[in-house]
Parts: sequence; structure tokens; C-alpha cells
Amino acid sequence: MSNETSISINPYADDFPTLKAILGVDVPLRLDCGVELSSFPLAYQTYGTLNKDKTNAVLVTHALTGDQFVADVNPVTGKPGWWTTMVGPGKPIDTDKYFVICSNVLGGCMGTIGPAAINPETNQPWGVDFPVITIGDMVRAQALLLDYLEIETLFSVIGGSMGGMQALEWAAAYPERVFSCLPIATAATHSAQNIAFYEVGRQAIMADPDWCAGRYLAENKKPRAGLSVARMAAHITYMSEGALTQKFGRRLQDREKVTFGFEADFQIESYLRHQGISFVERFDANSYLYVTRAMDYFDLATTHGKGKLAEVFKETEIRFCVVSFSSDWHYLPEESRVIVRGLTGAAANVSYVDVVSDKGHDAFLLKEPEFESVLYGFLNGAALRRGLINE
Amino acid sequence: MSNETSISINPYADDFPTLKAILGVDVPLRLDCGVELSSFPLAYQTYGTLNKDKTNAVLVTHALTGDQFVADVNPVTGKPGWWTTMVGPGKPIDTDKYFVICSNVLGGCMGTIGPAAINPETNQPWGVDFPVITIGDMVRAQALLLDYLEIETLFSVIGGSMGGMQALEWAAAYPERVFSCLPIATAATHSAQNIAFYEVGRQAIMADPDWCAGRYLAENKKPRAGLSVARMAAHITYMSEGALTQKFGRRLQDREKVTFGFEADFQIESYLRHQGISFVERFDANSYLYVTRAMDYFDLATTHGKGKLAEVFKETEIRFCVVSFSSDWHYLPEESRVIVRGLTGAAANVSYVDVVSDKGHDAFLLKEPEFESVLYGFLNGAALRRGLINE
Repeated sequence: MSNETSISINPYADDFPTLKAILGVDVPLRLDCGVELSSFPLAYQTYGTLNKDKTNAVLVTHALTGDQFVADVNPVTGKPGWWTTMVGPGKPIDTDKYFVICSNVLGGCMGTIGPAAINPETNQPWGVDFPVITIGDMVRAQALLLDYLEIETLFSVIGGSMGGMQALEWAAAYPERVFSCLPIATAATHSAQNIAFYEVGRQAIMADPDWCAGRYLAENKKPRAGLSVARMAAHITYMSEGALTQKFGRRLQDREKVTFGFEADFQIESYLRHQGISFVERFDANSYLYVTRAMDYFDLATTHGKGKLAEVFKETEIRFCVVSFSSDWHYLPEESRVIVRGLTGAAANVSYVDVVSDKGHDAFLLKEPEFESVLYGFLNGAALRRGLINE
Repeated sequence: MSNETSISINPYADDFPTLKAILGVDVPLRLDCGVELSSFPLAYQTYGTLNKDKTNAVLVTHALTGDQFVADVNPVTGKPGWWTTMVGPGKPIDTDKYFVICSNVLGGCMGTIGPAAINPETNQPWGVDFPVITIGDMVRAQALLLDYLEIETLFSVIGGSMGGMQALEWAAAYPERVFSCLPIATAATHSAQNIAFYEVGRQAIMADPDWCAGRYLAENKKPRAGLSVARMAAHITYMSEGALTQKFGRRLQDREKVTFGFEADFQIESYLRHQGISFVERFDANSYLYVTRAMDYFDLATTHGKGKLAEVFKETEIRFCVVSFSSDWHYLPEESRVIVRGLTGAAANVSYVDVVSDKGHDAFLLKEPEFESVLYGFLNGAALRRGLINE
């Protein structure tokens, strides 16, 4: 099922555990920018067993800084997979019933080709010579993985945040290959505010002298400070104002009084700094530029529907379940309702749930019983209709 | 009325126009951190005429990146003052009726002592050897200015954002010297989310190698990139999501198609970059650290009321008008309601208006008719009661 290739594509090879499942894609992939990738590695993980009819495959698509390690230990961080709340035996995305696939996105830094990979023409990391990719490109690469796995149709494609964009793109680009689709805490188009936040992050990275005009890997450097600031800025958008107040408020970090200085007096400062520093250890700065850019460029209606979402979905037979979280201000519930209105305008089959939560955007990654029950219910209903389970 | 001192306190002396009104304060000021400033410059502007009884003085307190040039041309930027919508002859803060004073805050960089000023002991800019200041310190310095001007009581103290914190601090620290108080788009305590945003800005500045551990002025450098990123991140919080969508949406900057690169494809990117770059020309990076820190430390109830806002205001005779803006997510309307509840809990005299606006936090600086009418009405009513005008 997997084809081990060299992991020399990974610039941090010395520190890096072997990634077991890397497919050497040898079918050319034409990117939206016009460049053709003739062959490239695509790293993925699978969980559960594919049934004989190959009808129980679920593609989980990951968010900006996610990876293919959904439900098993991440070999880089040593931490549990990023969606163990949701994926596993007896979980809503039940690996006893479904065959779950997750691949590292194109442009990522966990084994799939991206700016940190080696450009075979120069034997150097691609850096900013790597072509700019789109959500559409990510999904076309995933389709090649399904071809390789000889899976014609996905029972479901499920993703939150940027993963939700990929889920929507799947529904738009390959409607005949998708039975059900769950776009979670996401948007059909990247808003000005979100472009703005990611632009701040990119500028922070590119302002770091250790970015070396994108060639830091060749120069054996790393724009730590810039990437850390980018992560800190983004991290604020993942939590609600209420969650920050509840979790940290104005509590001081290991002290009784403020220090009248610029150390981390407050717990929130210490927390954010830790988020920034630990992120640098696991993520490539150029990947951050490329993957955020792919999100900025995402505009489903323009790409697939002449500017109209209803046009994108006009003949779709896919069953949709759109989920938002009430306190999410990164991808607002209103942005989910725009998706729902587009689907409704095409008389598509769509459920929508705005989960009441105070956890902000991050809610989709956290323990949130109503969300779990929605996912379980929808998937179970769809599995009945698909004949995967009996009443 | 003003005492011109050398402007050698200003490190950008060569580019800098003469600041006319700089008071050389020679009364010692004990800061909250324990340091005593024995003498220091305090830059201010005045508009209108002080009446014989000295009862018509209005202190306008400025926000993070504001300055004393409220209603006349800013000599650094060459642009109109920052509150010409509100202050001037016939405007709501009517300089035909009131004597308006505005001083550059302690820690600022427009003539008042701050980290860019020269430390007389070393003949070098203070840099990060400058003592960390608080909103309380800013207000005590302003009180020294009033002493110098021989003004016992302010008819009103009015400010938005950090200016609103100063207005509240005035009411708490000098209740007998204030007749009316208008805290606008502000909070009685800095929230975890706002500490987080300012911490990102500070980290961006301190990560810039040209910050030189705070000694960039002595080394003839400037952390341009870091300060620019800090400004970009903060600027997003000044606008509502809706205002960004309306003003920029996904419109491209001087091009038909995206470039598949990291240039400013979108207008919002170009706008933010411009905000960052132009800010660097007019603001000192260390001042940004100090003034944001003063905001983080602001917690009115803890400082003045044993943790209870109602306690802060328990004997106040001041007339308050609290104003918020419905789409402000930097200082939420809810944070204004906390102030109002504190005042109500002390049975104080308080009006509250949440102005319906889609302009976000910036609304207080923009043309907003309902806001103008609220300010005009409240001040006019207060002026009648104070005997400044007749029916």
C-alpha cells in the first residue's frame, strides 16, 4: 500500500524519524500556476481497513500546520495525533468501520514535496523557487494518491479550517468521487481579514535576516524569530476572546507582581512565546509562506462557479454537513452560512450545525461533545445510505 | 504658557521640526516602578482660550500611537491632527468654548520624555534603561502640566482607546479635579487577547537584529522590519472584519490576476505594508514597547478599588459618558459595559452609548455622526451645568 522512498527530501533528515508511507508519485501534476511537477513524494498515513468494495474510504484533510499523523503518534513531536478526539476505533470517524486516509499537503514539510524538499535539478532545497501552489493543487495530488490506492470514490471527505477548503474543493472538482462532505470551521473564500493576518505572518518571516531571501536551508540557518512571531499572531486567531480570558485572564507567570520589564509577566505571554518557539522545531518557514498563500488564493465560486457558489454545486449529488462554531472569529459562522446558502441555492443535500462553543476556531480540534455527536450522527446516517452498516 | 527647552531629547533632531510647547517639568515624579524622574520634558499643545475662572479646560488624552497634535498639522507627518473631526471651532469639542490641552504621553516619542530621549547621566538615548511606565504615571505627569498651567479642575477629560484608560485613571486618581469624563472605546483592564496582540508586536520588534538589544539609536540603526510587522498586526485589530471586507475584500492591487508569488497581490496586503512602512517613519520602536506595556499593566479595579470597580468610584461626583462602538473587537462594547456596571454599582452619574458602526475600533477617529452628536450633547449638557454656557 505504500512505497518507501528516500527521505532525503526532508532537509532535517538527521533529526527526522523515518516516515513510513511516502508514495513516489510518477504521474505528472500540472499546477494552477502553470508549472508541471513530473514526479514527487507524497507522504500519507492510513488507519483501519479498506473493505472489499472499496466504499468505506474517508479522506481527512489537514489544516495549515497539521500533517498526516491524525490518530497515531507524531514522530517529530512525539505527541499524539492531532485528531485523536475524532478518529479511532469507536470514535465518530470510526476506524473499525472506515478506512481513513490522510496525506501531508503539497507544499507541506512532513514528507510531501514542498519548499524544503530537494530540487533534483539543483540538488539544493527548492526554497522560494518552489512553485506557488493552490488548494486545487493539493486536492489534485490527493486524487493521484486515491488513484494509486485504486479507490474510485470516497465515502467521505472531512476537514476543518484549511482542511475544510480542501473538502469543498473535492466536492467542486471531483463531485463524482465523493459521497459525503464535511467542511468544518471553514470558508468558501479567504476573507480580507484572514489574508491580512497571514500577510503579517509572512512579513514577519521574510523580515528575519535568517530567512536569507528564502535560501536559509542551503545556508544552514533558520528564521526562528520570524516564524515564531508568525505563529504567535496566528495563534491568537485560533482562540476566542472568552477562551483567552478564561484560560489566562491577567494571571501572572510564576510571580506575585509585575516586573516592570519586558519579560513574560503574564501567563498569556509565556504561553504564546512557547507556542512560537515549539512551532519552529516542527515546521518549515517557507512551507508557512506557501500554505498560507494557497489559502489566500482560495475562492471556490470564482474558480468553479463563475463567481456563484450555487453554480459550483448545481448538479451535485453529494450529502453535505457544514459545521461552524459560535465563537470562531477566524472562520466566522457567517462564512459557513455562505456555504450553506450556496448549497441551498443549488437545492443540494445539506445539513448545517453551528455548534455553541466558547473555544473559538480551535474547537474543532478539542473535546466538544455536541460536535462529536453531529459528526457521528451524520456519518452514521450516510453509512446507512451507503450500505456500509445495517440499522 | 510654554517653556521651550532644547529638543536634543529627540533623537531624530535633524529631521524634526521644532516642537513649540515643551514644558521642562522640574517637580520630581515618582513612577509606579519606584524610579524618580527629577526633571523631564513634557510636550503639549493647546487650542482655544482658557476663561478667567479657568473652568473650561478639556484634557484630550491620546491613544497608543497618537500625539499632542490633536487639531493642527502634525509637524512630523505634515498631515492634519488626528482628531480634527471632533476638535476645533464649532466641532463637538468646541475650541470656541473650551480650552483644549493635549500632551504627548510619558514614554512617547514626540517631545515628552521616553526611551528615545537622552539620559542626562550617560548623554546617550535611554533605550531600554528607561524605566517602565504605567497609565498612572502618564496621568500624574499630566497633572503636573495642569499645575504648571494653574488649572485646578478639568471641565472634562476625554480620550479613546489608551486615551480612555487615561480618562478613567484621571477619574480614579484625581476625582476632585475632574468635572466630567468621557472614556471612549476602551476598557478598565487590559484583556488577555489585547496583551497577546501587543506581545506579538513587542516580540516582532525585539526579534529584529536592528533593535540591537534596545540600543539601536546609539548604534545608528532602526528596527524597521520589526516595528512595521508590529504595526501591521495591531492595525488589523483597529478595523472590523466587515470594514476590511467592504474596503478591500479580495480586490487585487494593480493587476488582473494573482501572480503566484509573495508580492502584494491583494489590496489589503498592499495597504497593510504601507501602514507598517509609514509608521516606522514617525514612531520610535522602544516607545512602542513601553506604551504597550503601560496598557498591559492597566487594571483600574486592582490599582484603585481592591479589585472592585464600584469601589474605585464609590464617592465620585464626576459626570461620566461611556461610549463604545458595536463592531469594535479590540475594546469590545462588553468592556465598556463593565465600566458602566462599575459606575452603576457606585450609583455614579453615567450615560452609556454603544454607537452602531461598522468601522471597528477606528470608528472613534473617523466621521461618525451618531458619535459626534453624543459627544456634542453630553459636553453641552455638562457645560450648562458648569455654567460655561447659557441655555
